Amino acid sequence: MTYDTLYAHILEKESYLCVGLDTDIRKIPSHLLKEKDPIFEFNRQIIDATLPYCVSYKPNIAFYEALGAKGWESLQKTMEYIPKTHFTIADAKRGDIGNTSSLYARTFFDPSASGFDFDSVTVAPYMGSDSVLPFLEFENKWVILLALTSNQGGSDFQRLQTPEGPLYEQVLRTSQQWAGADRMMYVVGATQTQDLAHIRTLVPDHFLLVPGVGAQGGSLQEVSRIGMTSRCGLLINASRSIIYASNGQDFALRAGEEAHKLQQEMAQYLQQYRGV
Amino acid sequence: MTYDTLYAHILEKESYLCVGLDTDIRKIPSHLLKEKDPIFEFNRQIIDATLPYCVSYKPNIAFYEALGAKGWESLQKTMEYIPKTHFTIADAKRGDIGNTSSLYARTFFDPSASGFDFDSVTVAPYMGSDSVLPFLEFENKWVILLALTSNQGGSDFQRLQTPEGPLYEQVLRTSQQWAGADRMMYVVGATQTQDLAHIRTLVPDHFLLVPGVGAQGGSLQEVSRIGMTSRCGLLINASRSIIYASNGQDFALRAGEEAHKLQQEMAQYLQQYRGV
Repeated sequence: MTYDTLYAHILEKESYLCVGLDTDIRKIPSHLLKEKDPIFEFNRQIIDATLPYCVSYKPNIAFYEALGAKGWESLQKTMEYIPKTHFTIADAKRGDIGNTSSLYARTFFDPSASGFDFDSVTVAPYMGSDSVLPFLEFENKWVILLALTSNQGGSDFQRLQTPEGPLYEQVLRTSQQWAGADRMMYVVGATQTQDLAHIRTLVPDHFLLVPGVGAQGGSLQEVSRIGMTSRCGLLINASRSIIYASNGQDFALRAGEEAHKLQQEMAQYLQQYRGV
Repeated sequence: MTYDTLYAHILEKESYLCVGLDTDIRKIPSHLLKEKDPIFEFNRQIIDATLPYCVSYKPNIAFYEALGAKGWESLQKTMEYIPKTHFTIADAKRGDIGNTSSLYARTFFDPSASGFDFDSVTVAPYMGSDSVLPFLEFENKWVILLALTSNQGGSDFQRLQTPEGPLYEQVLRTSQQWAGADRMMYVVGATQTQDLAHIRTLVPDHFLLVPGVGAQGGSLQEVSRIGMTSRCGLLINASRSIIYASNGQDFALRAGEEAHKLQQEMAQYLQQYRGV
């Protein structure tokens, strides 16, 4: 998907919501466990309920891998079910030497290899350029690079001072030599709004994928006010607050309601903050 | 597997060789393609041929993932085939926020979840403590943390100066607060022997997993001379130089010969450099 297409979907839906499919067999409603593929059945109903309110889906690959080959099949069915109108993110945090990253890229981007055709994959920057570049060889596919994460250990290394500012700044700076705002996004945690303003000065045009709104406690309004560009430039992820809004028979209905609430807020912020 | 058990196997086999199972469907001998599961059949024969000469196997997870659910099944069969006498490494370079890393840990360490029972997994340090600690909650399982890699992009960030030395030194220093030499190893590229000496002063007792000997050009003797401790402290990985030594009918025989050659060198270095 191109930048223009993604932005067009955002305007049409009045939403920059990404629904995180962190589907955990131990957390889904018990009535689904009798289904042949409970994980897919859960995702299918969540997707049906949230489709009008979001522009993106982000399966967290760990949740599927933890179930072995079976989980991988549930993920394949899920990805086939998501319509091409929605930007898909393989939240995989991959990154390895060139020939290995090439294979991770094939995994998520080349349907003839693994069956997947994601729009993007999250990548860890520690191994540098040749761990990232192979993902960019696929046309219209995106790298979403870890920059500043909001987890507790995020500060262990990401904020270490280097001669040109903290490490995450160097990641933002160096990686812009690898691809522009049309192919690269950055993961920036929502709980650090003071940093978000600073990051926007370094990457004024890039989309930022912001997890941590909702269950993790970030403020959607603050993130939108500070992070939004004239072409939105934000994908805000919510996982648990949507998909586990209820664990009864009404889980999909409640997920749809939660997504709708966020979409309504987003419609307002798109008016209010875009292009300010 | 404990440190003591691993060391006992090293002494018994007179080897600290790790065979990297980077099994690529596009590179294996063509006569295997008629098999029901060519990847497993290749691995099975490689394992049979190399078992006496190595102490460890390291499947590179990307190569299996790239084949989707089918690849995952080949990996499961491979892991069931490797005897418990050999230290197994899931070369996955994972790392995410705590609850997600927990799931990656279950994937590779908890047979009741995914079917896998690896001894260790490679982990990327960028997201810090809570991305690593969940892997250490499994008894006798190991984290092999990326420290200094020998790929071209390895210097982009790993060698950035921080107030207390380059980033990779900080990774070595900080991560020692998370686990000792009985549960943590480090990935250190073999092409950087001058750095290896320095790294040994920072982590005098830890096992180092050293890729890059063989096809990638590092010198086994130099790495052994500089990196070996009184209890060996080295696992040296060779992948392509062993598994693709031939791509004819004799591939397994030739792989065994290559592994045997390395083992014979290693037997000599264990005499020569251990405890120097």
